[in-house]
Amino acid sequence: MTSSSPITIMKMKLNHCSPSPPYTTAAARRLLPPLIGHHQIQLRSSLGPTLHNSPSFSARAIIARSASSSSSFVITAAMASEASVKVIDGKKVAKDIRDEINAEISRMKDSIGVVPGLAVILVGERKDSATYVRNKKKACETVGIKSYEVCLPENSTEEEVLKYISDFNDDPMVHGILVQLPLPSHMDEQKILNAVCIEKDVDGFHPLNIGRLAMRGRETSFVPCTPKGCIELLHRYNVEIKGKRAVVIGRSNIVGMPAALLLQREDATVSIVHSRTRNPEEITRQADIIISAVGQPNMVRGSWIKPGAVIIDVGINPVEDATNPRGYRLVGDVCYEEACKVASAITPVPGGVGPMTIAMLLSNTLLSAKRIHNFK
Amino acid sequence: MTSSSPITIMKMKLNHCSPSPPYTTAAARRLLPPLIGHHQIQLRSSLGPTLHNSPSFSARAIIARSASSSSSFVITAAMASEASVKVIDGKKVAKDIRDEINAEISRMKDSIGVVPGLAVILVGERKDSATYVRNKKKACETVGIKSYEVCLPENSTEEEVLKYISDFNDDPMVHGILVQLPLPSHMDEQKILNAVCIEKDVDGFHPLNIGRLAMRGRETSFVPCTPKGCIELLHRYNVEIKGKRAVVIGRSNIVGMPAALLLQREDATVSIVHSRTRNPEEITRQADIIISAVGQPNMVRGSWIKPGAVIIDVGINPVEDATNPRGYRLVGDVCYEEACKVASAITPVPGGVGPMTIAMLLSNTLLSAKRIHNFK
Repeated sequence: MTSSSPITIMKMKLNHCSPSPPYTTAAARRLLPPLIGHHQIQLRSSLGPTLHNSPSFSARAIIARSASSSSSFVITAAMASEASVKVIDGKKVAKDIRDEINAEISRMKDSIGVVPGLAVILVGERKDSATYVRNKKKACETVGIKSYEVCLPENSTEEEVLKYISDFNDDPMVHGILVQLPLPSHMDEQKILNAVCIEKDVDGFHPLNIGRLAMRGRETSFVPCTPKGCIELLHRYNVEIKGKRAVVIGRSNIVGMPAALLLQREDATVSIVHSRTRNPEEITRQADIIISAVGQPNMVRGSWIKPGAVIIDVGINPVEDATNPRGYRLVGDVCYEEACKVASAITPVPGGVGPMTIAMLLSNTLLSAKRIHNFK
Repeated sequence: MTSSSPITIMKMKLNHCSPSPPYTTAAARRLLPPLIGHHQIQLRSSLGPTLHNSPSFSARAIIARSASSSSSFVITAAMASEASVKVIDGKKVAKDIRDEINAEISRMKDSIGVVPGLAVILVGERKDSATYVRNKKKACETVGIKSYEVCLPENSTEEEVLKYISDFNDDPMVHGILVQLPLPSHMDEQKILNAVCIEKDVDGFHPLNIGRLAMRGRETSFVPCTPKGCIELLHRYNVEIKGKRAVVIGRSNIVGMPAALLLQREDATVSIVHSRTRNPEEITRQADIIISAVGQPNMVRGSWIKPGAVIIDVGINPVEDATNPRGYRLVGDVCYEEACKVASAITPVPGGVGPMTIAMLLSNTLLSAKRIHNFK
């Protein structure tokens, strides 16, 4: 993942779910021109290094199986029509949530004079990271959260970063601390993330947070933003989770795994499909709810989807598109056109899960301020 | 759960998997006469209050469905025969592990003069708890672990218990600390368990431990003993886990949930079946590996099992048996007789998972001593 890596954008025909896309590399995403609005945050969170640490899905093999079973699928899917699918509007929900947060912050300020504060630590000069941080700052401003920013040079020492974290841990004006990832390679990411005190870990990545999420009867402190956003979309669209079959595709620490834990907390029967799963299509087709977070463009085809299923597509994958002035466009993990014909509801890409991540970060920061000041 | 609760032992005919057993209550188990050997430990760990906090499976509904599909099942199952099933001998494996631990402890003692120590804190006069603690002590002796025991009266204060934990936390002779559950009702169990320092939490129930277990790329500190024992049995019998479909029945914090996380760490495709699952039989039948930990006698029938599946039965359920001098006998969650005709391997009850729990506790204590003294 050096900056000299070639840009590999998916080569596929416009408006088609290509059968065998090459994988988008993290380097490609990093080098892409800046994207619009909050999707940048989503791109960082859901498609960062963690997701890509796992071996890739064998897309070719999967799609070969998919094709062989497509005839029987078409018959079933014929019952559904594109017109009936509900598009889950993440952009609108995120806006609603920001408005609610804004109102709560005003109430808190008026009542106890406290303004929630979010500190962001950025190390190095990565352009994408700088853009994400800028967007977080903007989003904070829109809801009335005060943002504190520290930008350190690439060659900073671990100790310098830890010192800033320690200061923010002690600062009563700061209720949330976020270390922008990835960190320069000479730093121990785990060590640095673990230094953020658990009460201000609004990203929710601390293992203690994850442990609480996994355990029944334990109260969670902060739920990681992207999976929290997925579940929030289901709630806001009144999708029943209890007793439903849910399949999470991908098992990353920041999306797939916590999403599975959240679904289980809500009494879904959860299966986790990952790169080592031998029959992902067959298992996914059993799901009433699909959350996909693998970063493989159009991997989930129509034949993977049970008629009437609800789909939350976390993937944001750039694919080559000569007709687009930028030379690429964004697609999800799910082949949207095919899915629309089978699913009962689906998040679009962009405009689905993307805008929710930062809304949840703001929500966690407000939650933290309320907790610290015991404000109900 | 007062001591005056009536004993409710399963009423069922000897050697038959009854179609609609009433549930065994925790009180019943507590009041049962002492059982033999290490099974007592297993009974506490796998069938304690945590497992029973969840609403019970709808056994009647489940078995009605099971019966309706049993004819097609018989045809499939006819391919397998009882003679071909491998009985997974937990008693033998546990003995092997104790021998290995014994050898390691001798090596450590000879090399650096350290003897691992396990502290057990018992509060109150519950007979079953006293028996468990006695058995742990005995097991420690057999492998050369020094055990430290504190028995406090029922009316002790939280502060007294916390003081002992704090002393053991600081004691360099103690490498593992175990608080015998359940604690008297006037005590905050979470608060007390969380007081055990993470380096000596050999039970592995701390949320930080569970979080590390859930997260990819994180090293686990201690794996909870019963699920660790389940996976160890699979390993020792060379059962391939990677890429296999695994179904965990039950989602308790002490068995089901960590077992699912462990299977996922080993690249199985995991589904978790629980009390809210609408079609447990259908999902379980997809599994190559079944781990059942619900505490429902004979709930998993032959028709739930895919031919050739490997079954790890964590349940230890007392059922009424007039032919037995004790008036009861122990059965698992899985109908053993039916399962033997379909599965390729199965743990018996008793003598399967039961003996493994305490072996894993000894193993965790040794691991802790090795870590603390940096002994390889």
